[in-house]
Amino acid sequence: MKTILPVIVLILSSMAFSWSAQANDNSAEPIISGHWHNMNSTIMKENRQFAVYLPRSYRQQPEKTYPVLYVLDGGVTQVRGITGMVESLGAEDLNQQIPEFIIVAIPNTNRSRDLTPTKTDLAFKGKVLDELKDNSGGADRFARFIQQELIPHIDSTYRSNQQKGILGMSFGGLFVAHVLLTQPESFDQYLIADATFVWDDNYLNRTLAQNQDKLRDTQRSVFIGLANNDHLGELGMTNRQWGNEFITGLNALNNPDLHISSHYFPDEQHATVMFLAYYYGLIELFAPQSK
Amino acid sequence: MKTILPVIVLILSSMAFSWSAQANDNSAEPIISGHWHNMNSTIMKENRQFAVYLPRSYRQQPEKTYPVLYVLDGGVTQVRGITGMVESLGAEDLNQQIPEFIIVAIPNTNRSRDLTPTKTDLAFKGKVLDELKDNSGGADRFARFIQQELIPHIDSTYRSNQQKGILGMSFGGLFVAHVLLTQPESFDQYLIADATFVWDDNYLNRTLAQNQDKLRDTQRSVFIGLANNDHLGELGMTNRQWGNEFITGLNALNNPDLHISSHYFPDEQHATVMFLAYYYGLIELFAPQSK
Repeated sequence: MKTILPVIVLILSSMAFSWSAQANDNSAEPIISGHWHNMNSTIMKENRQFAVYLPRSYRQQPEKTYPVLYVLDGGVTQVRGITGMVESLGAEDLNQQIPEFIIVAIPNTNRSRDLTPTKTDLAFKGKVLDELKDNSGGADRFARFIQQELIPHIDSTYRSNQQKGILGMSFGGLFVAHVLLTQPESFDQYLIADATFVWDDNYLNRTLAQNQDKLRDTQRSVFIGLANNDHLGELGMTNRQWGNEFITGLNALNNPDLHISSHYFPDEQHATVMFLAYYYGLIELFAPQSK
Repeated sequence: MKTILPVIVLILSSMAFSWSAQANDNSAEPIISGHWHNMNSTIMKENRQFAVYLPRSYRQQPEKTYPVLYVLDGGVTQVRGITGMVESLGAEDLNQQIPEFIIVAIPNTNRSRDLTPTKTDLAFKGKVLDELKDNSGGADRFARFIQQELIPHIDSTYRSNQQKGILGMSFGGLFVAHVLLTQPESFDQYLIADATFVWDDNYLNRTLAQNQDKLRDTQRSVFIGLANNDHLGELGMTNRQWGNEFITGLNALNNPDLHISSHYFPDEQHATVMFLAYYYGLIELFAPQSK
């Protein structure tokens, strides 16, 4: 007969939910998931907002340093969703599958301008989306803002351990992939959720082919999540096809220090995949041994 | 050739991330995910804390009423995780798959006392966990606290629409299932995540057999998520076996108004299943047509 230990594990230990033990006599004490800050960006020529979340142990462990996770499309719902997910996955309740993180979320001021790598009218097999023509191609400038203004500010203000990850979905995934291809030294982990692979007639795979040398020696981890967009017809199927081409192209670099993982979500569409892509991406990037 | 519409859907609409448009000149404005409140409970004979999260539209739409989701094991990480998940799933970013909710999370003061339905030393095939003997069996009292003190307070303080769901994991799932079986009128939706089916030698299935009449006419929705606990040996396998027996027993009631859905997570253990069980459970209970 087996030991009693599994009983204890199943019943008690694994669910040792943390209850803030202090008595709370102040009615309506807020539960704070981060703070908004802002800076005047010389590079962006505008004031830029960003949210900072600090992990639960941050105050209690004043010597401890933390990796930083940069989050694109960082509106308030995104901040709540990602901080809740990251704190949960890093807590005892969920077996501490990933580390604790400082999280920095960047809301948009002009999404298509800042997250797209080229100035284009999004020609896809002759189709044109005119409104993008004069409002695209700013990814390199936005990346410079993050690299030269935001990250130095974060690293000098908070106890970062210099490890940096970035995540983004759709245009955000396009931006993350563009940074990976053009300046892979920028981040340690890249989480790319159903990126706009159709952008500018296969821009990402064309750029991958041109920038192979930059990725041959780099030590990075990349997660690529792809949704099932067949309901969008040729465009949706092409997006997945080019996404798979991108995964194949990264693997073909044969760089053992470039860790590539990917996940196809057959039951999720572009409009529903984000949360699960972030969930599985975080586990693959930060706790690959747990699966 | 298909219309340009899918391009717009894929590229723009589905990712219309909401950025709080107001300029924010106050440095360090907090991002608040709820507030702690407390009440002196006559039934529990102690002060009980609870967190209340209000949906994003709550202030802007003063006529709107909302369903309420009650969350067990409601520590601060649980509050952040659930509110982030519910707000994300209800937002445009994720296709508004579920409604907006008021969320009420209840932290523990004495977990095994309040969440377990019978006083037992957890005899499982002769194995005994003595420490539970004098600290179990309080679920009915805790349910009375929720029904007679907490819910009336919430319904009279916030704009609830009288629809109520409850979710819990492990002992929390045991509690949710116990309330379903003994007082199914208490909530409209029951989310049971890897409940402790081994409790008191198959308590839940024994009670289901005795309480069939209570469930024959009720209109309720139930989701049961089960993890793969084979690594725990006979105990883990029995927990899943009895969980499946519970699902079969509910379906055997042949009540067309009792909507039963379930999900087995072969890649998740008791200690890792919670977040995904809540995610899929929320979708099954509140947006079953979306899958």
